[in-house]
Amino acid sequence: MTVEMAHDRHTETIPVMRPQLPAADQLEAYLRRIDATRYYSNHGPLLRELERRLALHFHVQPAQLAVVANGTVALSAALLAVGAPAGTRCLLPSWTFVGSAAAVWAANLTPYFVDVSPQTWMLDPLELERRTDLDGVGAVMVVSAFGAPVDTAAWDAFTERTAIPVIIDCAASFDTVTSVASARPGKSPIMISLHATKVIGTGEGGLVLSTDERVMNRFHRICNFGVWDSPEGQILGYNGKLSEYHAAVGLAALDGWERRRESLAALTRRYATALAQRGVTTLPHYANGWVSCYCNVAVDDAAGTILRLEKAGIATRRWWQSGVHRQRAYRPFGRDDLPVTDDLGSHVFGLPFFHDMTDAQFERVMRSFDEARSGLRAAML
Amino acid sequence: MTVEMAHDRHTETIPVMRPQLPAADQLEAYLRRIDATRYYSNHGPLLRELERRLALHFHVQPAQLAVVANGTVALSAALLAVGAPAGTRCLLPSWTFVGSAAAVWAANLTPYFVDVSPQTWMLDPLELERRTDLDGVGAVMVVSAFGAPVDTAAWDAFTERTAIPVIIDCAASFDTVTSVASARPGKSPIMISLHATKVIGTGEGGLVLSTDERVMNRFHRICNFGVWDSPEGQILGYNGKLSEYHAAVGLAALDGWERRRESLAALTRRYATALAQRGVTTLPHYANGWVSCYCNVAVDDAAGTILRLEKAGIATRRWWQSGVHRQRAYRPFGRDDLPVTDDLGSHVFGLPFFHDMTDAQFERVMRSFDEARSGLRAAML
Repeated sequence: MTVEMAHDRHTETIPVMRPQLPAADQLEAYLRRIDATRYYSNHGPLLRELERRLALHFHVQPAQLAVVANGTVALSAALLAVGAPAGTRCLLPSWTFVGSAAAVWAANLTPYFVDVSPQTWMLDPLELERRTDLDGVGAVMVVSAFGAPVDTAAWDAFTERTAIPVIIDCAASFDTVTSVASARPGKSPIMISLHATKVIGTGEGGLVLSTDERVMNRFHRICNFGVWDSPEGQILGYNGKLSEYHAAVGLAALDGWERRRESLAALTRRYATALAQRGVTTLPHYANGWVSCYCNVAVDDAAGTILRLEKAGIATRRWWQSGVHRQRAYRPFGRDDLPVTDDLGSHVFGLPFFHDMTDAQFERVMRSFDEARSGLRAAML
Repeated sequence: MTVEMAHDRHTETIPVMRPQLPAADQLEAYLRRIDATRYYSNHGPLLRELERRLALHFHVQPAQLAVVANGTVALSAALLAVGAPAGTRCLLPSWTFVGSAAAVWAANLTPYFVDVSPQTWMLDPLELERRTDLDGVGAVMVVSAFGAPVDTAAWDAFTERTAIPVIIDCAASFDTVTSVASARPGKSPIMISLHATKVIGTGEGGLVLSTDERVMNRFHRICNFGVWDSPEGQILGYNGKLSEYHAAVGLAALDGWERRRESLAALTRRYATALAQRGVTTLPHYANGWVSCYCNVAVDDAAGTILRLEKAGIATRRWWQSGVHRQRAYRPFGRDDLPVTDDLGSHVFGLPFFHDMTDAQFERVMRSFDEARSGLRAAML
């Protein structure tokens, strides 16, 4: 009996991610405020407070920020807000989560996949500007690779020179946009996910930042069915409303953000050091003063490594699979040749990463990672 | 001081609607289960339990029901699930909430507005079938008028004869589809809103019912970005995920449904009797064994009546305004002549309706309504 339990404990799988949002006790005071007002959605008082607090957090004006139902609808609404005309082409990387492409389609735009830079795993603004087929492009969706800093000024400059609006899918960049100066919000709207899996979350949710208050004003309306002031649909829109319940979770999560960030930063440094010692490739600019909810590595035999880790009870995830262009729903859409994306898709996967990972868990991950790699080398001889 | 207070109490505005979802105490046990599992969204255990309990409630198989993020995304996803081809025309009534048309657009379909029957305030399946322009119509969206029963078998027959798929926006019909035999779910997917303003709610939320399990299977996938089983986008999709927090609210709301329904039924009967005594036109089939969250009337001088009620501190709402076709965002889309919709838009508005309306409030509404009408008659002489 005791032996069995010890065995079970030893082989317990370490998950790749283990979200934790505020507990019921931390929500209670906020929930009682909902009871008192009987206001449950439709831009209620808790959501307005969450937006005010987040504006302070991001050092922006309240009119430069909006919190909505989820990151996907936020991306679609941002595409409408910047004026991407229905029926036009939207350039985006294939190296992203499928939701980015889904958001393009739901905005009545046609996704067209372009390759990312091997230096950043992201679109390159200068390279994109050199394209000779920008006529008929209604918008560009830039995607931050797993929270990595996007050079927002460079993309604002791209829009100024090409007149093509840009939106930036920074789903995992809640911390990056405050911690890295070059990633601060510019005119091109930035979407940050507040999904439970991110560093801070509301359950489902997303926020958008832009210094262009005219665009943000449109964005607000679009997320309320295009209805504002008068109860009529003034512009096309979505139901992007965040409920007061999710706002309550977000407020409680903000209460605990500083402590959460410390845990994530410690784990990030620990991974970065251990992987650098071993000469393992990580996401470019990883552990450069910002935290996210991932630790992605690129290794030669990713499939073999993943399999051996799985046998050792270490869960991993190929977060972005082989790119969106290889997924059945998106194969019919146009694209360039995508050698960098294909390369990343073959080699990149995420190691377990969560704020309350124990020392023992971290050591078991690295030990299993080492064993998997030496096992693969031995098998090759 | 006492006089002032009495005056304040007398002139306190009676709202047109006053939502009330379960209080924090009723949520607590469910929230603690979320804490225990650390599962927050992505079709979690509370959502699965809510779906099981709702399937029992609606007397359908679990595979015939899905609960998602909101009614609007549910409508878009249902249009995709029934196979409405992108770029085709979707016929729908203009006599609806703007969200219906927004959902059509987000499914990459072109809204085309047709008129409703004066007998039902809804589309008529036989009349629609007689149209000579059904080629190029990819789908029909039927809309229940404020919770009124839709003849689901007649619409299934429409689809069988025309091969045009139908979805039914029954946003306010949570009770109707169980209480009225002819409104029971058929093959054509039915959407019921779980927004806070409805008779039962999750905050934001919506559910879809269909006896076509192949369609429901597609619907489930579409609401998860088109991703299922393998982590790849197999079909186009949306983020339609409902969080565990909203599922918790839904479960607690179901716990209290029977009592809530009794209050709503009593108020419905009371309004129906009072309005029938006065010869006032209400929604066709109102108070016919089902409850909703509205009491809509049609009167000659609606604008004048609304104004006088407002002065008496009675809030009203022209829930569907003058129809969607008159709203700026939807004026560019095609439509028939819409005389019935125009007529309803000029005459219909909602009186205050909420489950905990007091006798004194109800009597004040009816007294003010009588005074408004007699005042208008006197002014006309």
